[in-house]
Amino acid sequence: MKNPIGVFDSGIGGLTVLREITRLLPNENTIYLGDTARVPYGSKSKEAIERYSFEIADFLQKRGIKMLVAACNTASAYAVPRLKEELDIPVIGVIEPGAKAALNLTRSGRIGVIGTEGTIKSNSYVNAMNALRNDETVEIKEHGERSLDRYFEIRTSKMVIFTKACPLFVPLAEEGWTSNDVARLTVEHYLRGLKKEGIDTLVLGCTHYPLLKEAISDCMGEGVALIDSAEATAAEVMRVLTGKGILNDAKGTASHGFFVTDSPERFLHVGRRFYGDGLDSAELANLEGQ
Amino acid sequence: MKNPIGVFDSGIGGLTVLREITRLLPNENTIYLGDTARVPYGSKSKEAIERYSFEIADFLQKRGIKMLVAACNTASAYAVPRLKEELDIPVIGVIEPGAKAALNLTRSGRIGVIGTEGTIKSNSYVNAMNALRNDETVEIKEHGERSLDRYFEIRTSKMVIFTKACPLFVPLAEEGWTSNDVARLTVEHYLRGLKKEGIDTLVLGCTHYPLLKEAISDCMGEGVALIDSAEATAAEVMRVLTGKGILNDAKGTASHGFFVTDSPERFLHVGRRFYGDGLDSAELANLEGQ
Repeated sequence: MKNPIGVFDSGIGGLTVLREITRLLPNENTIYLGDTARVPYGSKSKEAIERYSFEIADFLQKRGIKMLVAACNTASAYAVPRLKEELDIPVIGVIEPGAKAALNLTRSGRIGVIGTEGTIKSNSYVNAMNALRNDETVEIKEHGERSLDRYFEIRTSKMVIFTKACPLFVPLAEEGWTSNDVARLTVEHYLRGLKKEGIDTLVLGCTHYPLLKEAISDCMGEGVALIDSAEATAAEVMRVLTGKGILNDAKGTASHGFFVTDSPERFLHVGRRFYGDGLDSAELANLEGQ
Repeated sequence: MKNPIGVFDSGIGGLTVLREITRLLPNENTIYLGDTARVPYGSKSKEAIERYSFEIADFLQKRGIKMLVAACNTASAYAVPRLKEELDIPVIGVIEPGAKAALNLTRSGRIGVIGTEGTIKSNSYVNAMNALRNDETVEIKEHGERSLDRYFEIRTSKMVIFTKACPLFVPLAEEGWTSNDVARLTVEHYLRGLKKEGIDTLVLGCTHYPLLKEAISDCMGEGVALIDSAEATAAEVMRVLTGKGILNDAKGTASHGFFVTDSPERFLHVGRRFYGDGLDSAELANLEGQ
């Protein structure tokens, strides 16, 4: 089935997810929409995010997508449940694939999750892991006094999950400071607590974080497996398309369209760090209600 | 005149300006509005910023303000000219006071300006200095290859202005990392070029930057005067109120109201770093057209 896969995010972060999809499934056509006029989603209400996500789904469905990927943690947490219910095409978020991959990999049951403040506050990865394992949260402890040191220890009946917000990782990734001294120091500060807790698996719960993977991996050491939710989501996309029999088996040059809701200039400039070659132009999308 | 001074920003940065106003003019009542639902302004169009600013002006005028301060660089550049034309009360932005203070202080005529990407790209400080001195830009040179090193040398017939975008300063200030090793390294990286150019005056052209003043001052050394545009704007507010004879000379406890257009929680939490004590509650504002 030649119809494209639709991928959306509030901005450019979702491009890491798109990149993994196109790597894993090079025959697939894709359309990406970055809602750059309304970025960031993290600070907006559930109602607003649902409304934005349905507007975007509508825009992409008019372009014939066969599947929708919410490559955005906030949209995954807030809008994917209703999108799944109401759309006729398969819908995938980034949280469940990341949570599933972590559960498959951990041996000790001591898992770390890092993300933006919004993602960590929402506990969406913990909830997804609990749902997948039929588990439940038993106790939540807060460690550290200052915001720098603060992380959460969430005990379920089967696991211990440590969660930590790393607000500076997004601006560092967007600035392209991913392996310099500032990036490495910032990574060390944020991850000190989780490192001490002896986790064996760390979920990169933000679509920007794959850019910092090397610095994070160097800090955590070889004993800690990193879950790149972009990779995990791409694998889930393949699994679903295969399951439904709607993979594109026509060989040839795949087409990749890019849309933004506000000025494409910065999207193209910064986006290349996230997507790599092939991000040469983006069209302005006119969404209903914007 | 007891009527309050209205101060607005896209979010929390303008609180540094409000703080200086309340320090300099402790008798004045104030109302602050942070347009947290639509932050950041920097990436939005001139038309959008004008529209938002008029909506906010309308909201604040209904609450009887005697003066309006656009404590936001983007709103100052895009909306203050038309606000000045159309409103019956005095309107002040942050750019002109900062530019004026720099021109008053410099002896060598070699001035540095740092700000967000949007502010630097707009050249609004250079334009304001040119307008104030009846000067004009003669030549613009770009230095540095990577975004980290890139800065601009803008020669006018009377001055040389060096401008540099420092995108990580805003997230560092919001995270409260203002004097740790990460903050100091980041400051050194960004300011290396301007330091080498031997400027004698540096304009902190973003309302977040006063939080990093100590680290910036330590990096630049004693020979470089820092222009805090929050302080410069407060001084201008006093000058205008005095000139119009509308200072509040009734002694007593001044009242300070805070409004936001989206969830007050983060505003209060992060805003305390910017404003200090006295930021205890914020009301949700319902703007027209939002």
